[in-house]
Amino acid sequence: MSKTRLEAFSDAVIAIVITILVLELKIPQGENILNGLDELKHQFLIYILSFITIAIYWINHHHLFQATKIITGKILWANTILLLFLSLFPWTTSFVTEYPNHIIPQITYALVMLLADFTWFIMTIFLDKSNQTVTILRADKKLFMTFSLIIIGIILTPLLIYSALIGCAASLLPWIIPSKKIEKTINNKIIH
Amino acid sequence: MSKTRLEAFSDAVIAIVITILVLELKIPQGENILNGLDELKHQFLIYILSFITIAIYWINHHHLFQATKIITGKILWANTILLLFLSLFPWTTSFVTEYPNHIIPQITYALVMLLADFTWFIMTIFLDKSNQTVTILRADKKLFMTFSLIIIGIILTPLLIYSALIGCAASLLPWIIPSKKIEKTINNKIIH
Amino acid sequence: MSKTRLEAFSDAVIAIVITILVLELKIPQGENILNGLDELKHQFLIYILSFITIAIYWINHHHLFQATKIITGKILWANTILLLFLSLFPWTTSFVTEYPNHIIPQITYALVMLLADFTWFIMTIFLDKSNQTVTILRADKKLFMTFSLIIIGIILTPLLIYSALIGCAASLLPWIIPSKKIEKTINNKIIH
Amino acid sequence: MSKTRLEAFSDAVIAIVITILVLELKIPQGENILNGLDELKHQFLIYILSFITIAIYWINHHHLFQATKIITGKILWANTILLLFLSLFPWTTSFVTEYPNHIIPQITYALVMLLADFTWFIMTIFLDKSNQTVTILRADKKLFMTFSLIIIGIILTPLLIYSALIGCAASLLPWIIPSKKIEKTINNKIIH
Repeated sequence: MSKTRLEAFSDAVIAIVITILVLELKIPQGENILNGLDELKHQFLIYILSFITIAIYWINHHHLFQATKIITGKILWANTILLLFLSLFPWTTSFVTEYPNHIIPQITYALVMLLADFTWFIMTIFLDKSNQTVTILRADKKLFMTFSLIIIGIILTPLLIYSALIGCAASLLPWIIPSKKIEKTINNKIIH
Repeated sequence: MSKTRLEAFSDAVIAIVITILVLELKIPQGENILNGLDELKHQFLIYILSFITIAIYWINHHHLFQATKIITGKILWANTILLLFLSLFPWTTSFVTEYPNHIIPQITYALVMLLADFTWFIMTIFLDKSNQTVTILRADKKLFMTFSLIIIGIILTPLLIYSALIGCAASLLPWIIPSKKIEKTINNKIIH
Repeated sequence: MSKTRLEAFSDAVIAIVITILVLELKIPQGENILNGLDELKHQFLIYILSFITIAIYWINHHHLFQATKIITGKILWANTILLLFLSLFPWTTSFVTEYPNHIIPQITYALVMLLADFTWFIMTIFLDKSNQTVTILRADKKLFMTFSLIIIGIILTPLLIYSALIGCAASLLPWIIPSKKIEKTINNKIIH
Repeated sequence: MSKTRLEAFSDAVIAIVITILVLELKIPQGENILNGLDELKHQFLIYILSFITIAIYWINHHHLFQATKIITGKILWANTILLLFLSLFPWTTSFVTEYPNHIIPQITYALVMLLADFTWFIMTIFLDKSNQTVTILRADKKLFMTFSLIIIGIILTPLLIYSALIGCAASLLPWIIPSKKIEKTINNKIIH
């Protein structure tokens, strides 16, 4: 499996996931359209959260594989599982917007994000091993923060209903600026 | 972030947005199919408007980045926000076709286009700065016309219901032929 | 506009159109699933017809642009209009399967195909002019046959309901094997 | 038809098929959301089965064409028919999840997979012939196992309802690790 094909396929899947999110957005119903739009505020916030999450995944995925040379079967399958969890985002987004006041959809949303992050963690371990780049491709500290924020969010959801989603949103912050360790490696090796 | 990847991802998202527009088109219902088709005339006009809008965005996006060399984090994020607004087109299109005689959907449609255009404006400022191409990548006059047409359209909507959409359609005219300033720059530098 | 980008964007749109056709396929309803499946036979035939039509468009589109060097604004816009008509295929397919026994959906289906073919005709004229390849890129005889078959099919629809679709299917036959004139040109010039 | 374009188009179609699977996933309905989620367990298993199946098709498709040089019209059309069957996966997946306790949807699901596998078989024969790679590109033993497992699964479905799906899942096992014969050929010839 060449790296280029894996990247191209992942890019395509991620581009489709980010775009079909919109198919789950509902049109305001009822007599008063302005009221209807107002009720969809929550829906739009989740839409933006999911869109930004997938975009951040795309940016970091691109970055990670730029510093990679060897693709093993394990990496290929970890990437496939990651895409599987990312592909569930339109469904979890739709689930949350359908039941804005229930804790189960919010927890489900956060769990799928947690599973995607965990698969990312496993994938970076495989990448680090096969490319012999000792802990350069891993981001264990960032991931520990990410996991903690989502898990705390999930635990607090029964008390404060939007905790899970706030945890998810907060967990994105360390990923907005891609890893500088990787950046340096790319520039040194002048890969790509 | 390499320019090629940003372009490829944007192209993919734009291609998907332009194609899933059709999923919002309804099938004529009721006994008399010919009457049903006739009632969908309005729907088809919006479909074509959205399709052409996205196509023009694609052409100008391609053109803009052809004259670009450096992608900063700011540009990357402006582009992501632009894609976010473009991804809302299937939803706003569907909203307008669902309520052809209400002013709110029409204004919503025009507002999303205005926000996309505004993000474009911000992105060209970032691009111009990072590529040190003094005002070559910007198209402030064109954008001023675009903003004005859409805003006038929105303001007139309570008087004439299709004003917002007419404003949107008119705002596309200066973008059909891509910037000659950029064209010249590309040919001079023989980029790409 | 570089040829590569135009090809890549057209490929993406065509790939999405061919794939979202399936979203319009219905699941058999009612007590007796086997009967339900049987009633969907017609639906599957249209699905296959649309799928093969789009596939043939893709093959010939690829072939046509392989023998092309210069992309003008006119070609770019003819291609955009072509994509617009192709993007309507999921809708016309859905329309026909919704009303298998009405002549209007069948005629609508055939008309959209006719419009796509006509745009193709216009595009080959532009391509031939701008690339100064006297009638090599055009396929006027084939297109005349194609137009005739679809138009005859449409005219016969009030007498025999499936005529329009049969005309569409028959009109594909000359396009299954791509133009040998183009093939020769490509091999001689060793383009691409 | 260049190999690169055929690969790119197939990749795009496969990426879209794998991603729109999610559009068929339903949101739990009714008062008790937790019960609703529980009832969707079966639906998720089918989703994962379809996702993994398409992913394995992608990996093996990529592998197969890496060892290929010549694309004939026959190969092009076998590939198109293969994509047609793969594009039906969202529909068969949705059919099974709609009627989890009927044997007809399960058999339909397995039959479509069988048809895709059979088209694969035909395609490898064409590829082997045109590339004069005696039986390197074919995987007749693997395919014989695959066919047997699916057919046995289908036959047992009236006795044990999930047999067809279990047969499908089992038939994937030999394909998880791509052909070593092809791997060797690629490395020897240093193709791509």
